[in-house]
Amino acid sequence: MLQPLTIVKIGGNIIDKADALHAFLRAFSTIDGEKILVHGGGNKATELSAKLGIPTTMLHGRRVTDAATLDVVTMVYGGLVNKNIVAQLQAQACNAIGLTGADANILVARQRPAIPTDYGFAGDVERVNTSALLALLGAGCTPVVAPLTHDGKGTLLNTNADTMASALAAALMAKRSVRLVYCFEKQGVLADVDDDNSVIPQLSYNAYDVLKERGAVARGMLPKLDNAFAALRAGVQTVAIGHAGNIAALLDGGCSGTRLVQE
Amino acid sequence: MLQPLTIVKIGGNIIDKADALHAFLRAFSTIDGEKILVHGGGNKATELSAKLGIPTTMLHGRRVTDAATLDVVTMVYGGLVNKNIVAQLQAQACNAIGLTGADANILVARQRPAIPTDYGFAGDVERVNTSALLALLGAGCTPVVAPLTHDGKGTLLNTNADTMASALAAALMAKRSVRLVYCFEKQGVLADVDDDNSVIPQLSYNAYDVLKERGAVARGMLPKLDNAFAALRAGVQTVAIGHAGNIAALLDGGCSGTRLVQE
Repeated sequence: MLQPLTIVKIGGNIIDKADALHAFLRAFSTIDGEKILVHGGGNKATELSAKLGIPTTMLHGRRVTDAATLDVVTMVYGGLVNKNIVAQLQAQACNAIGLTGADANILVARQRPAIPTDYGFAGDVERVNTSALLALLGAGCTPVVAPLTHDGKGTLLNTNADTMASALAAALMAKRSVRLVYCFEKQGVLADVDDDNSVIPQLSYNAYDVLKERGAVARGMLPKLDNAFAALRAGVQTVAIGHAGNIAALLDGGCSGTRLVQE
Repeated sequence: MLQPLTIVKIGGNIIDKADALHAFLRAFSTIDGEKILVHGGGNKATELSAKLGIPTTMLHGRRVTDAATLDVVTMVYGGLVNKNIVAQLQAQACNAIGLTGADANILVARQRPAIPTDYGFAGDVERVNTSALLALLGAGCTPVVAPLTHDGKGTLLNTNADTMASALAAALMAKRSVRLVYCFEKQGVLADVDDDNSVIPQLSYNAYDVLKERGAVARGMLPKLDNAFAALRAGVQTVAIGHAGNIAALLDGGCSGTRLVQE
């Protein structure tokens, strides 16, 4: 019987709302046992870029990261967002340690090829250093992971937080009984994107395919769901998606959010 | 016989010069045994503040840190500078892990009282969590510490990097044979601030007092030397000050830089 490990991704506009983030972090800090938090960057990188006169270019929902933008996301994700989350968790007696993929070499990525689309300094995860993560967990630390990796040659890379959470879950399931929860500002996967009460309690990959064909999945949800199903297919025990305010119920498997199921 | 530990503070304008920083990090990565790097922020925080229209106020050589400036130093010190150093060290096969005082709760500080001078969110170190640092060192990590601490109640605090290096050295000397080296852009403590060849090879506290009375110590050097002598008096085995490019010779005790001596 493997020891349980909870991996939570927090993203969407929760990061941008101080009160909602604070409430979420209080709930996160009460999760029993080993846990890892992966966070996105919210809109703060776009805001800082605008203030600095650096244009923001999004392609297919992803940020094009030139050198100036890489500095911005390093400051915002690795500094401002990550360190404030860590300080808040410490105040809740959760022994957080803030990390990018470069720290302790936990996540190595490869810069995405410039063809067909040049995303600049964007990274695709290549390797998770499970022994480093297990050492930190074993030391009683709760890793708080910012959406940045490195290429092992000295360059940081902007990396999708949903993908990082999925990769961490898939890599650690050999050593832990992993439950993976994606938390954001919606109640779960919606059957009708305009109706917040249309949460789908259980979603299989086949049902997801049908929803996609109907065009019924909000565009921003596609990479999140693809990553979530990738973790499920890799064998991660529990994968759920729901509102950040319902993290306790999501973890209990209570009537909240969407749970992904094999079929 | 305690295991050796090398603590290096890198600061001054080395942080601002990509080539000098890169060369220093290459040399740092070759230091045998356990090591910790503490870095300052250089001028990047002032540059970012200027771009964002946030006024920079310095009092007695220290930055007044209002809420907007705290965000700036969190981004620059905890994000941009720290994570780029970590990525570069990883490329040199040095298993760096970037930390603020909040991460793993390694350095708790108290906000400096507003009387007689209100420095805003500036912290004075209260407690070093040696067991967390020893656990990270034991896991084969090299802590890279940014000049930020926290108050344990959720607030980050801007903290002098020279003081942090001294506090780390003094706290860890019970468990390690500590050598502490302050690296910057000068060759060492100068007898004549206008003559780079006037390095004082050995400096006692009494001799330092005489230099101070003569007004012969560069003003920016006073807090550095006060911190360096504090570590020596606390019992740290070796304390040296010198040029970042001479780190190897400084560590060998070779003819480079200034070594502090009891008398």
